[in-house]
Amino acid sequence: MDLELVTIGTELLLGFTLDTNSAFLGQALADIGVRITRRTSVPDEPAAVSAAVAEALFRTRLVITTGGLGPTQDDLSKHAVAELFGAPLEFHPEIWETITARFARMGRTLSERNRCQAEVPQGATVLPNPRGTAPGLWLSGPRGEVIMLPGVPGEMRGLVREEVLPRLAARAGGTVVRSLVLRTTGIPESTLAERLAPVEETLAPLTLAYLPSLEGVDLRLTAWQSDPHAADRALESAGARLRERVAEHVYGLGEEDLAAVLLEDYRKHELSLAVAESCTGGMLGARITAIPGSSAVFSGGLIAYADAIKQELGVPARILEEHGAVSEAAVSAMASKARERFKVSVSVALSGIAGPAGGSAEKPVGLVWFAIADAEGTETHRAVFPGSRQEIRIRASQYALWRLWRRLRAGVPPTAAPTRL
Amino acid sequence: MDLELVTIGTELLLGFTLDTNSAFLGQALADIGVRITRRTSVPDEPAAVSAAVAEALFRTRLVITTGGLGPTQDDLSKHAVAELFGAPLEFHPEIWETITARFARMGRTLSERNRCQAEVPQGATVLPNPRGTAPGLWLSGPRGEVIMLPGVPGEMRGLVREEVLPRLAARAGGTVVRSLVLRTTGIPESTLAERLAPVEETLAPLTLAYLPSLEGVDLRLTAWQSDPHAADRALESAGARLRERVAEHVYGLGEEDLAAVLLEDYRKHELSLAVAESCTGGMLGARITAIPGSSAVFSGGLIAYADAIKQELGVPARILEEHGAVSEAAVSAMASKARERFKVSVSVALSGIAGPAGGSAEKPVGLVWFAIADAEGTETHRAVFPGSRQEIRIRASQYALWRLWRRLRAGVPPTAAPTRL
Repeated sequence: MDLELVTIGTELLLGFTLDTNSAFLGQALADIGVRITRRTSVPDEPAAVSAAVAEALFRTRLVITTGGLGPTQDDLSKHAVAELFGAPLEFHPEIWETITARFARMGRTLSERNRCQAEVPQGATVLPNPRGTAPGLWLSGPRGEVIMLPGVPGEMRGLVREEVLPRLAARAGGTVVRSLVLRTTGIPESTLAERLAPVEETLAPLTLAYLPSLEGVDLRLTAWQSDPHAADRALESAGARLRERVAEHVYGLGEEDLAAVLLEDYRKHELSLAVAESCTGGMLGARITAIPGSSAVFSGGLIAYADAIKQELGVPARILEEHGAVSEAAVSAMASKARERFKVSVSVALSGIAGPAGGSAEKPVGLVWFAIADAEGTETHRAVFPGSRQEIRIRASQYALWRLWRRLRAGVPPTAAPTRL
Repeated sequence: MDLELVTIGTELLLGFTLDTNSAFLGQALADIGVRITRRTSVPDEPAAVSAAVAEALFRTRLVITTGGLGPTQDDLSKHAVAELFGAPLEFHPEIWETITARFARMGRTLSERNRCQAEVPQGATVLPNPRGTAPGLWLSGPRGEVIMLPGVPGEMRGLVREEVLPRLAARAGGTVVRSLVLRTTGIPESTLAERLAPVEETLAPLTLAYLPSLEGVDLRLTAWQSDPHAADRALESAGARLRERVAEHVYGLGEEDLAAVLLEDYRKHELSLAVAESCTGGMLGARITAIPGSSAVFSGGLIAYADAIKQELGVPARILEEHGAVSEAAVSAMASKARERFKVSVSVALSGIAGPAGGSAEKPVGLVWFAIADAEGTETHRAVFPGSRQEIRIRASQYALWRLWRRLRAGVPPTAAPTRL
C-alpha cells in the first residue's frame, strides 16, 4: 500500500523548523507495510496546499497532510481540502464543547476565532485529539482519501498511533518491515565490517546497514516479509550470528543506552560507582545521572578540570610534572584516590586533550587516558578519538562506560530479542 | 526569485535520515532573497526522480536536487536529469584525475565503478567538490535549470556556500531576508510576550517570532526588504527597543551560548569558578567545559549526587536531616564549602528533584534550589521547571549560568549588532 505525504508550513521551507514529523511518519508507516512514495512540502498558502494534495491524490489516492490546522493559520488546510472534496464545512457543537472544556481545565478562555476549529467538512470522520484543540480529519470521496493531521509533533504522533495506524494496518496486510538493531561501541566501522564480512554474505534476503554515530555503530538488520513471525525469527537468527563475531562490543538492542545497561548490571551486583573527570568536565556524570534511578549505583565524583583540583584529590604534584595531566600515571592516581575518597566499589577516571588547541606530536588532540579502579586493582586504556572538541568528549564518555561494562561482563553477550523500528 | 527543491533518497522517506539538508538550504537561500516554493522528496528510483524534477521545472524553471549522485546509487539522479535535458554523458578525464588523486592521498584505491562519477551531461557546468568524489552539476536548457548537489551534508553545504549562493545572489538582487535574534532566558514566554506587547505593536513591517527552547526563548526579528543596509538599521533599532524592556534576560545574539558569554565576562574580571552539582550530575560542568579555553576560568568541582558526598564536602548532616538535600540551607552550604575547598572566586551549587519519581506536594518534581557564593556572600534562588527529567536538568543548568551572569553583569545589556540568519 502506497501513500503520499504533504507537509504544510512556510517555516518548514524557510528551514526554521526541522521536519521531524516526516521521519516519524516514514518509520511508523513502514512498520505496518505502508510506503511513502513521495513527500511534498508547501508553504501556508491555500493554492499551494490545494495543488499539492490534488496531485498527490491523482497519483496514489491516499494522502496524509500535516500542519495548517491551527487557529493562527486560519485552518487553511481544512478549507483547501474541503473544497477539493466539494464538502461544505459544518459546525460540530460536541467538538466545540470538548475544546472549551479543555481550555477551562487549563484556566484559559477561548476567543471566537477558535470556533472554526469545531468545523468539519461534511462526511469527514473526526479523529479525536486529546493533546490539542484541532482534531484530525479523514476525508473520503471519489478522488480518494485525505487524512489531515495537526503539525504539532506530540499531537500528530498521538493521532498517528491511536487513530491512523490501526485503520491503515487493518487494510494493508501486505509486506511488513521489521528491524533488529544491535548497538556496538569501542570498534571502528571498518574493523566491524571486516569481522562481519563472512556473516554478511549469508544474510540475504535480510539487509544489513551500518549506522555510525558518536556513541558507536548500530547494526540494523531489516526484513521485508509478509509474515511478521517469520521475519522476527529470521532477524533473531541473523542477529545471533552477527553477535557471535563481535560479542564484546554489542551492549544492547534497539535504542538501549549504554549508561542504562551498565547501571542495571551494577545494581544487580550491588556495586557503587564514582567518577573523576578532567577533559569531559562532568559529561560522564551527566550521562549516568540522565538515567532515572541512577542514585542506586552512582555516588557522584569530582570534576578535576584544573590541575589544582587533581592535586586536591591526592594526585601527587610529581606525577603531574613528570608525566603531565594526560598520562597513564595521572589517571591511575585519579581513579584510585577517587575510589578512596568517595568510598565506592568502582571508580573511573579520564583525562585527555579535547582541543581544538593544546595538542602536540606526542599527545595529539583526541588523546584520552582512562583508568578503572576496583577491589581487583586498576586497569588503564589509551585511545585517540577523531572529531571536534564536543565529539571527542562524547566519544570519550561512551568509551569509559563501555570499559566499565566490559570489565564487569567479561564476555557475556546481552540476550537477544527483536526490536520493532 | 523562486525555486523548487527535490531531495532524493529512499532513506529520507523511510524516516531513517532526518532531512537537515532542506533546512540548511531554506535558510541559506532565504538569506539571499531566494524562496523555496515547494520541496519534493522522492525515493532512489529513476522514474520518480525524473517525474519530480520535470514537474518542478515546469512550475519554477529553477530546481535544486540533493542526493542520488554517489557511486553506490549508480549516479541515478545524473542519468535521470541528463535524459530530461537530452544531454548525453561525457567522460571528463580531469575529474577522474582529481578523484584518483584524492583517493591516493587517503591511501585508498578506486574501483572501476567510480569512473561514472567523472561523467558529465553534455554542456553542464561542473561545480568542484573538494570534500568528496561526486562534483555538483549545473544544467541549463530550454526547460530551465537544474543544480544537482550530493546528499552528504558537509559536501552539499560547501558546494552551496562556494558555488551556488554566489551565482544565485548575483541574479536575485531582489528582496533580502535578514534577521536579528535576541537570546533570552530566565523568563517564561507568556511573561516575555506581555512585557514586549507595547513594542510589538510598533514593529511592522518587521516580524517578531518567539522561539522557545530548553535554554530560553529566542526573539527573532525578521526584515524582508530590498536594501540590506536599511534592513539592518531597522533590525538594530527594533532590537534596541525590545532589549530595553527585558534587558536582564537578554544574554546574547544569534547563536551565542550563555556559557561562552559568562566565561568571557569572568575572564575579563579575572574570576575563577567551581560547581557543586547534585541533580544535574555534571551537566553544568559539561556545559561550561564545552567552550574551548574554559580552563582559564573554570577549575572544576564536585558531583555531589549522593548525600554522603555532600557530607564529605562539608554539608552538615543536621542540615540534610532537617531540611533535606533539596533545600536552601543545603545548597548554601554546598556553595560555600565548594568555594573554600576549590579555592575559587565564585562557586555555584544546585540541588533538585529531576524526577520522574521522588516528588511530593511540598517538593514537586522540577523543584531546584540554587546558591551562588562569592566574596560578597551567598545568594539563593528557588525555581520549578517543567518537562522530563532531562529537560528539567537542562533548564536548571541554563538557569544557574544565567544567575551567575546576572550577578556579575547587574544590568549591563550586551551590545547590539545584527546577526545574519
